Amino acid sequence: MKLLFITGNAGKLNEIKSVIPGIEGLEIDLAEIQHIDPKVVIEAKLREALRYRSGPFIVEDTSLYLNALNGLPGPLIKWFLAAVGVEGLYSIAQGRGDTHAKAQTIIGFISEAGEVEYFEGVVEGYVVPPRGSNGFGWDAIFQPKGSTQTFAEMTDEQKNELSMRKVAAQKLRDHLAL
Amino acid sequence: MKLLFITGNAGKLNEIKSVIPGIEGLEIDLAEIQHIDPKVVIEAKLREALRYRSGPFIVEDTSLYLNALNGLPGPLIKWFLAAVGVEGLYSIAQGRGDTHAKAQTIIGFISEAGEVEYFEGVVEGYVVPPRGSNGFGWDAIFQPKGSTQTFAEMTDEQKNELSMRKVAAQKLRDHLAL
Repeated sequence: MKLLFITGNAGKLNEIKSVIPGIEGLEIDLAEIQHIDPKVVIEAKLREALRYRSGPFIVEDTSLYLNALNGLPGPLIKWFLAAVGVEGLYSIAQGRGDTHAKAQTIIGFISEAGEVEYFEGVVEGYVVPPRGSNGFGWDAIFQPKGSTQTFAEMTDEQKNELSMRKVAAQKLRDHLAL
Repeated sequence: MKLLFITGNAGKLNEIKSVIPGIEGLEIDLAEIQHIDPKVVIEAKLREALRYRSGPFIVEDTSLYLNALNGLPGPLIKWFLAAVGVEGLYSIAQGRGDTHAKAQTIIGFISEAGEVEYFEGVVEGYVVPPRGSNGFGWDAIFQPKGSTQTFAEMTDEQKNELSMRKVAAQKLRDHLAL
């Protein structure tokens, strides 16, 4: 079975490949619907991608949830990054007195027959003043619980050991017996 | 010409009716795409509504832009309200030391022939601690520049005198010579 990962993000593709080496990336620019529930966003992406090709393929959504914002930004993270950057995200949480954060990846898989399944990975942690230059997105402000480094201070291998994306990808791999 | 306003919000319908009495509401639950540019959101809503009926009809997007968040929440306002409420929106702005805000309505009109046009209304103001119980959405924290009342402290008539929705609706009315 040839499995495709529909993404334009090379960093995400590399992380998934480290768990499922045979997966291949395919870039299709999919509109994202506006919703706070990542599964709603992912299912809409799967449905839209089906207009271009049939399954099996995956899409993923990785969201950052701030306690201080009662779960925002969640799937709306990219708009927060565009507007206020990683510094702004940290300073909002810090200003509200709660830097707890949750990083969550959900992989949406659609089979050749069109059946949809979801695989989740979660990492609890904190947002901190930006440190490090590796990774992408909000890696520089996310420090997993029990770690002294942000994702952006880790090597790709170190990050992948801890990553919510890896956990989700492992669940997918085990389910598909890849 | 019978003009429809596709909305499920009775408050918005009443405001538009005060300018264009002949308009009628039609409730269709349209998915909103995730984007920070309201015109992108509106155009997608118009296109989706076209799957249910032909023009002429309008949809609208009313966004609140906070200086303190470099333009967020914008069209993402409903997710902010759901997560942190009006108190949270105010306290985020206040905590960041800048309560300037801009309320903007954009009406998207699609003609019988499928041509799209936009009509905008903007009101500058401030977010303040919530006061008043009239109106809807974030009316309780939005105080227009030069006013001593929030939208939620005004009568419908007072609010409509100042409203960004009225300005946009007047432009539409004049354009269509209704």
